[in-house]
Amino acid sequence: MSERVLVKQLQARSDGPVSVSGWVETVRDQKKVQFVILRDETGAVQLVNPATRFDPDAAEPQNAEALALTDTISALTTGTFLTAQGELKHDERVKLGGVEIKLSGLEIAAAALPETPIAADSAQDKRMDWRFLDLRQRRNNLIFRVQTTLEHAMRTWWIERDFIEIHSPKLMSSASESNAELFALEYFGEQTAYLAQSPQFFKQMAQSAGFGKIFEIGDVYRADPSFTSRHATEFTSVDAEISWIDSHEDVARMQEELLAFAIGAVLEKHGAEIEELFGVTPTTPTIPFPRIPLAEAREIVAARGYEIPRTDGDLDPEGERQISAHVKETYGHDFVFITDYPHEIRAFYHMRDAETGLTKSYDLLYNGVEITTGAQREHRVDILIEQAKQKGLEPEHLDFYFDFFRYGVPPHGGFGMGLARVLMLLLGESSIREVTYLFRGPTRLSP
Amino acid sequence: MSERVLVKQLQARSDGPVSVSGWVETVRDQKKVQFVILRDETGAVQLVNPATRFDPDAAEPQNAEALALTDTISALTTGTFLTAQGELKHDERVKLGGVEIKLSGLEIAAAALPETPIAADSAQDKRMDWRFLDLRQRRNNLIFRVQTTLEHAMRTWWIERDFIEIHSPKLMSSASESNAELFALEYFGEQTAYLAQSPQFFKQMAQSAGFGKIFEIGDVYRADPSFTSRHATEFTSVDAEISWIDSHEDVARMQEELLAFAIGAVLEKHGAEIEELFGVTPTTPTIPFPRIPLAEAREIVAARGYEIPRTDGDLDPEGERQISAHVKETYGHDFVFITDYPHEIRAFYHMRDAETGLTKSYDLLYNGVEITTGAQREHRVDILIEQAKQKGLEPEHLDFYFDFFRYGVPPHGGFGMGLARVLMLLLGESSIREVTYLFRGPTRLSP
Repeated sequence: MSERVLVKQLQARSDGPVSVSGWVETVRDQKKVQFVILRDETGAVQLVNPATRFDPDAAEPQNAEALALTDTISALTTGTFLTAQGELKHDERVKLGGVEIKLSGLEIAAAALPETPIAADSAQDKRMDWRFLDLRQRRNNLIFRVQTTLEHAMRTWWIERDFIEIHSPKLMSSASESNAELFALEYFGEQTAYLAQSPQFFKQMAQSAGFGKIFEIGDVYRADPSFTSRHATEFTSVDAEISWIDSHEDVARMQEELLAFAIGAVLEKHGAEIEELFGVTPTTPTIPFPRIPLAEAREIVAARGYEIPRTDGDLDPEGERQISAHVKETYGHDFVFITDYPHEIRAFYHMRDAETGLTKSYDLLYNGVEITTGAQREHRVDILIEQAKQKGLEPEHLDFYFDFFRYGVPPHGGFGMGLARVLMLLLGESSIREVTYLFRGPTRLSP
Repeated sequence: MSERVLVKQLQARSDGPVSVSGWVETVRDQKKVQFVILRDETGAVQLVNPATRFDPDAAEPQNAEALALTDTISALTTGTFLTAQGELKHDERVKLGGVEIKLSGLEIAAAALPETPIAADSAQDKRMDWRFLDLRQRRNNLIFRVQTTLEHAMRTWWIERDFIEIHSPKLMSSASESNAELFALEYFGEQTAYLAQSPQFFKQMAQSAGFGKIFEIGDVYRADPSFTSRHATEFTSVDAEISWIDSHEDVARMQEELLAFAIGAVLEKHGAEIEELFGVTPTTPTIPFPRIPLAEAREIVAARGYEIPRTDGDLDPEGERQISAHVKETYGHDFVFITDYPHEIRAFYHMRDAETGLTKSYDLLYNGVEITTGAQREHRVDILIEQAKQKGLEPEHLDFYFDFFRYGVPPHGGFGMGLARVLMLLLGESSIREVTYLFRGPTRLSP
């Protein structure tokens, strides 16, 4: 078998024998000539074959191989994976890359059933049923190449700064956030295990362990019955935690540098293709990102004529869109840190400012949607236990966590960021379902 | 507050004022002078203070600040995190790095309780109870810096070769391997979800989706009641899957190149420290790794005088050690691929050789322990369903998986590798528990 050549390599290759492998995107089976568009992970190429049709009145015996190849092409179904041999020919008239392959042979790896169950414009839920077919679309493939570049850039940025990568356990003996939205399972018949809602406790543990700076990219779980475009029951969380900070501002600075670097890497590698396939032109954000205290953000939103219905003092999704619109209009920026949240609407482990009582925390909004909560953590164990009690948590369930603080811990803080939200907003998509490999929701557990 | 300097930066720094932050490793509180060994994530440094003890008979008033600093140091507990200010002084007589800091002030971030519950040589299970203290040991910290480098090198190797990184869901509607060792949970009261035992089905799905080459590093779950040094209920699995292979040999080649590159990167960065702290001298493996068919491996083991008690034709752990010892003696190699396993002892999705009936698969052994199973997958759906039936699986439960093949799929294969096993064997450790951030086993769900 001759060596496989990728479609993207064809243009730079000289005319001559070649072998390509991929799946059938379309077949045009004309009387005199047959065309197959074959796609692989790098592009699409036109295969061409002068048809040899069976002719009962043929003067001479027909070429059996040519007849068979013609029949094989006529019977090809969309999605069939095959290897094609033939002669590569450069031809400017061929719109698809300026090359085509004149077929000499085909080997079918696996023929597809004739009826493809979805099209590119099928309803989302139906496309999710057949996600493996949906992912064959170029734009969907690009999402995961963008994801790969984004993650690798973040990890590279961290590792160049001596961060340690951890994999914290997702099976826990307690809730990692509140007791709401918690998946529970029987653990060897004796105990109950819970699926981690975040790596919060364990990334803080790394600070007590003297790791200094850590990151984790891993799956977390929320038994969240909501059906919004921003929620899932399982999602990939991007987390970092650092020691010896003075405030949440140190965390925010780390995160904005990280994101500017990673988005820059994505645009450098995939910018043109993102523009072609998603019709958006993301830009690398400038540093620093704007910062607005929550109270001021609410005033700005109110001044824009939007009355936030929430009574707890937080922004709601429309409020987030409004303040982001304000930032975009005022500073031309896609990101904004909203800071200084009242402790009533933050987790118990957020540190509070001694004077104002406001938490040393932020949310980061990107193109109008929250992607992150970051904070300095309360590391003084007496205050931490007191804050847990105020939230109605039972300290005895969190004793293993409080131990991390009883034996010494540095001041520290960090953030958690939803990977799919970042991808969704970067690519201008409307739902995290579109940018998740296999979305999981209350009614979506398969494939 | 003056800027924090890392301990590793002190040697290259000029004498003068400096601020360091870390935790107290030891205190020597002598009458005339006090010494504190302070450790941070990069090393340890000696802090020194000429003691000013309260003297009721002092001729002149004593310096209140000096008295307070002396008292503070006397009261320091091991593990306390603090920031120290002082004058850096280079002094060849100081064994610890040839520098010390003459203290001018201390700020305690969080004082540790006086009784440290474990020591470096405490029993393993006790150390696991206090893992965050156990991880403060230099050698344990090194494990996770090695892990960070190992993973980043693997990802870099893959990404330079256009692999796509995926995050497959761990919540599934079916078992991903056999029906044994499966964690189940109630999913919104209506369905049962299972925790993925491997990303097997979903990394194969990426092949059907035309992704070509993919990798994933993520957690998987086994409700495995065993207590061996090689098993856990949750562990990090390193997975790759590639299209358009001719046999499992293509997978083996990819894996040996990947491992040689990644181990090389680890030794370049951490080799000296591994030797110092673990007393082992790992080497970068040469390519190709030796390959031995299983039947031949069993003969070699028998000829060495070890009778394998298993009757299913597989190797047992001692058989793995024996064949690895043979390979080490014969070829001087730490790795060996054992190939051509009978289908009776392999998963249903392994492709079988048409002539011999043996699977196109391998196990990879490293220093005597299995770290990987790799294989070409059966991509012809009729044969695949037949093989599932032979294993007693009910095809209707796997229909979503078979669909990946019904709509076209390329020939493909891949491997799964236990990250902790690789680390254990690289560092000469005796248990994966020692190299896992927080081990999870049948009786270990906390912290």
